[in-house]
Formats: sequence, structure tokens, C-alpha cells
Amino acid sequence: MIGEFELIARVTRGLEVNSDVELSVGDDAAVVSLQGDTVVCTDILIENVHFKQHWSPAHAVGRKSVAVNVSDLEAMGCRPSSVVVALAFPKTLDPSWVDDFEAGVRDECRTAGVSLIGGDMSSSEHIVACVTAIGDTMGRSPVTRNGARPGDVVAVCGNLGLSGAGLVALQRGFGSPKDAVLEHQTPSVPYGQGRVAAEAGATAMIDVSDGLLADLDHVAEGSGVAIDVDTSLLTTPDAVARVAAATGKPALGFILAGGEDHALAATFPPGTGLPDGWQRIGEVREGTGITVDGAAYEGAKGWDHFG
Amino acid sequence: MIGEFELIARVTRGLEVNSDVELSVGDDAAVVSLQGDTVVCTDILIENVHFKQHWSPAHAVGRKSVAVNVSDLEAMGCRPSSVVVALAFPKTLDPSWVDDFEAGVRDECRTAGVSLIGGDMSSSEHIVACVTAIGDTMGRSPVTRNGARPGDVVAVCGNLGLSGAGLVALQRGFGSPKDAVLEHQTPSVPYGQGRVAAEAGATAMIDVSDGLLADLDHVAEGSGVAIDVDTSLLTTPDAVARVAAATGKPALGFILAGGEDHALAATFPPGTGLPDGWQRIGEVREGTGITVDGAAYEGAKGWDHFG
Repeated sequence: MIGEFELIARVTRGLEVNSDVELSVGDDAAVVSLQGDTVVCTDILIENVHFKQHWSPAHAVGRKSVAVNVSDLEAMGCRPSSVVVALAFPKTLDPSWVDDFEAGVRDECRTAGVSLIGGDMSSSEHIVACVTAIGDTMGRSPVTRNGARPGDVVAVCGNLGLSGAGLVALQRGFGSPKDAVLEHQTPSVPYGQGRVAAEAGATAMIDVSDGLLADLDHVAEGSGVAIDVDTSLLTTPDAVARVAAATGKPALGFILAGGEDHALAATFPPGTGLPDGWQRIGEVREGTGITVDGAAYEGAKGWDHFG
Repeated sequence: MIGEFELIARVTRGLEVNSDVELSVGDDAAVVSLQGDTVVCTDILIENVHFKQHWSPAHAVGRKSVAVNVSDLEAMGCRPSSVVVALAFPKTLDPSWVDDFEAGVRDECRTAGVSLIGGDMSSSEHIVACVTAIGDTMGRSPVTRNGARPGDVVAVCGNLGLSGAGLVALQRGFGSPKDAVLEHQTPSVPYGQGRVAAEAGATAMIDVSDGLLADLDHVAEGSGVAIDVDTSLLTTPDAVARVAAATGKPALGFILAGGEDHALAATFPPGTGLPDGWQRIGEVREGTGITVDGAAYEGAKGWDHFG
């Protein structure tokens, strides 16, 4: 059995960090030099709740643990800087799982442009990865959930429905369609688009994690408005259509409420030229709650961990 | 079964935050206004590894989850600002456990002078609490593990040995000595003393979490020096003496290697007038490694999660 300190030394060997990092792994805490206010969020991934070992390779779990957090910083219109990663796992786990997880963390950090600067390691009965991401506002006001106004355009950037469809495929014992399964294993976050949306004048923004309708509902509630989604503006990815056909579930259900998409949804003042990669999907109205094509939506709006 | 969003609303109701918090619980991320560089650390507590439900009330676990993190910021000589708390627990857990945990988090935040500004909640098979603390340098250089110089005085502030003795008492089925058991359930961190030590000129500092000798070994290794601990300068708390007598274990073992003390250990230039509450316990020498009363130490130096 390899010791804790040896293990930490191994997984942090040769770690490269960005220039805003003043002190990285190896002390009681890490130190970063940020501009403007500090933005922070945390997300915990639990084995058999957020991932299964036989559904997701360790590398994908490592990538996902970073992606879902940095996505939350993007949704504030902020500049992501760094992550700290707490990992707990059984003493009997194959050490290569930990190596692959850490390689996934490093790869996603590189993709997201953030630095891994610290963490914690413990034993546990099941694998737990808790990542906290920090970023800075660069002196600009963060984009919250509370600024949507009637008349605003609702738009999304990123994939909707693929992750939920991938989960259903895995649950049924399939490793395909690949597009959907890979998206469930590691969401492809539209890195950089949070700041792009903020610069384009986004009035509210959210990371689509619970499900599109559930998350737009958070925006509607926070902003004191209603939001209507126009399904004629939504496109159905081939992989979602294939899973829908194979399972008899409506494709729209995956897109509206599949969850774990980690797309960005934002509202923009009417007449805003939407940035490249952003797709209009509805509008903000007077009132409260969410409608789909002008009517109440009867299906589930998203995921509830204790529902 | 109460829903996730209702649960989050309940545990965050009426939350008070300090004036440096720009945006608290309820959005994708929280925002704080810090002075100087941002300091960050994370620690994960796992049920049956770091605590047992029948050994520690939920309130004490909540307090401990904050204390062990803020202690790491203190050890950098920084100003602690805020924490985010990720909590996962079984769907079958009594909701009052969660309420009591959150009350403990709030109480310790108040004691430490920090704000609870966000978190995450999930289901899991066993309870997991992962806290991340952030603070700021106030423009001063952080005190790392790497600055100790031969001739420096080694000093500690806080309790040594009580937590380890309390753990042994609990393991043997006893709820006393109270001083030791309470200290194991929630370490009493010497809040504010990290900055005091930094202002007094501390050359290196560390949070004693693994065990005094193991942690001084980190300082020795980081600084490229040797450290000798003079046991005639150590005091044995009554509760440690009682557990030692009852178990036949040497009292010194608890003090030197008990772990989870969350005292602060620091080195100061020779001739420094130590601040109130700090006790000299040894000195920094040329060389490498740790000695006790000038000789090699044969016992365990601390705790290893994978040892």
C-alpha cells in the first residue's frame, strides 16, 4: 500500500500552473493573484450517484469533476483561474484509477485554461471527488440569475439533451451512441462563452445542470419574470433522436430536462446580436414560471437528488 | 422525502454574511471582495474515516468541517474570509442531522469570523462534508513551510494531544475525559493567531493536523533544515495524562503524534519575543529531519490515510 504523502507527490509531479498562481500544491493553502472580486463555487461527485466506475473511465470522471465546476464560473461571466480537488477512495482501489483520474483533471484544466493548485486526499468506502473552482470578475459585475427582464431573448450555448440520452443508453447497457455517452461521461463545456455573453450584455445567465427547464425556472424565479421556450427553435442532435427512438421516450424530454448538459443559458436585451455559438430558444415575459410553446409543461423539468 | 431545493433553502435561511461578501448562496457561484491575493484550501471529512455518527453529534461535525479548513488559512498567516460547504448524505438520514450539521457550520463560521457563502448537496451512501475556505493575504506575503532557518525558535499555539487522546477514549467506548473528547469532536483552533504570528515575524508556519512531528517534518523538509523538539518544554494536559494512564500508552505519543490537533506550529527568528499564547517547544538546526531531545524518534510521527 502506497502512503498518502507519496501518493500526493505522485499525482502532483510536474504540475504546471498559470502565471496568476503565486503558490501551488504543497503548503497548507494555495495563493493566487486575482483581478477584481473572487468568485467561488463547489461541486461534489459521488460514485454511484454522479458516475459509475463501469460507465465512466477514471479519466472522464477527472475531466467531469473540473468541467462541472468551471462551468459554474462561466455562468457568472467570470474568468476561471484555478481549482482545488479533494479526492477520497477505497484503500483497495487500483492505483491506476487515481493516476487516470488525475490525468483527466490535468487535461480538463488545460482545456479550460485553469490551474490545479491544491487538494486533499482521504480513504473512503466509495469514490468521492469534490472540486472547488475560483475565478475573478476582472472588475466587471458578475452576471447573476436575477437580471432577466420581460422582452429579453433567451439563448443557449452548448449541448442540450446529449448527456441525458447518454445516461439512458448506459443504463440500458449500451456504450453508444458515442456522442451521447461521451457527453454524459464528460460534458463539453463552452469555455470562454460566459465572458463572451457578459460582454454582449447578458442580463442573466445560468449553467444548465439540473435540466434546461429547471434551470430557466431558477432564472425566472430569481428575476421575477416568466420564461417561454419555443421548441421550434430547438434542434435535436442525431444521438438524442436515436436514443429516443430506441427507448420510446420523447426526444424533447432529453433536451428540456435531461440534466448535466453544462450548456450556458442566458438572457439578452431585445435586439442584441447574439454572439457566435449562441442560439435563441425563447423569450422572457411578464409573470412567473416556465412555459413551453406558450403552455404549461407537464413533464419533469429536471433532476432532484432527494426527489 | 424533502426535495433538494427545499432542503438548500431551509439550511441557508436567514444566513448572515460579512461585509466582504458581494454575492452569497443562491447563484452558480459566490462573489467576495478580497484584499491582496486570494488564499484557498480544501479538506474533506468522511463518515467512519474522520468521524462516526455515534462518536460525534452532527453539530460538532459541522463545526469541525469549518475549523479544520480555516485552520489551514491561519497557518498561512492570512485573513480567513469565507467557506463553501459540499454535503452528501444518505436519503434515509434523519433531516435533523442535516439541520444540526448546518447549525454547527454557522456557529463555527461565527467563531472564526468567516461567512458561509455557498455549497452543494447530494445524496450518497455515507456522509461526506467537503469544505473549501478562502481568505486574503491583505498584501502581506503568506507564511509558507519553507522559510525556517537554523537558529530559529519553534513554537506552538493551541492544544496538542487532546484530540488524539479523545479519539482513543471514544474507541474504547468512553465519553470522557470531556476535554479530550470535545477536542476530538471539534478542535479549538486558535483563530487570529496565524496573523499574530505573521506580524511577529514567523519564518514558517503549519497547521498541526497529521501530528506534531509529522507536520514539523514537512517544515523541515520544505525549509531544508532539521528541527529538534525539547520535550521538557511540552506540557501534558490532565485529560491526556488520564487517557495515557488508563490505556498504558505514553502521554508523549499523543502530544507528539496524536494528530487532528489543529494547533499552529511556527518558527521565529532567534530572539523574537513570542506573542501571547505561543509556547517555545524546540529549535531549528542545520541538517535534515526531526529529532526529539536530540535523538531520533522511534514512534509513529502522525497519521497516514493510506498507511
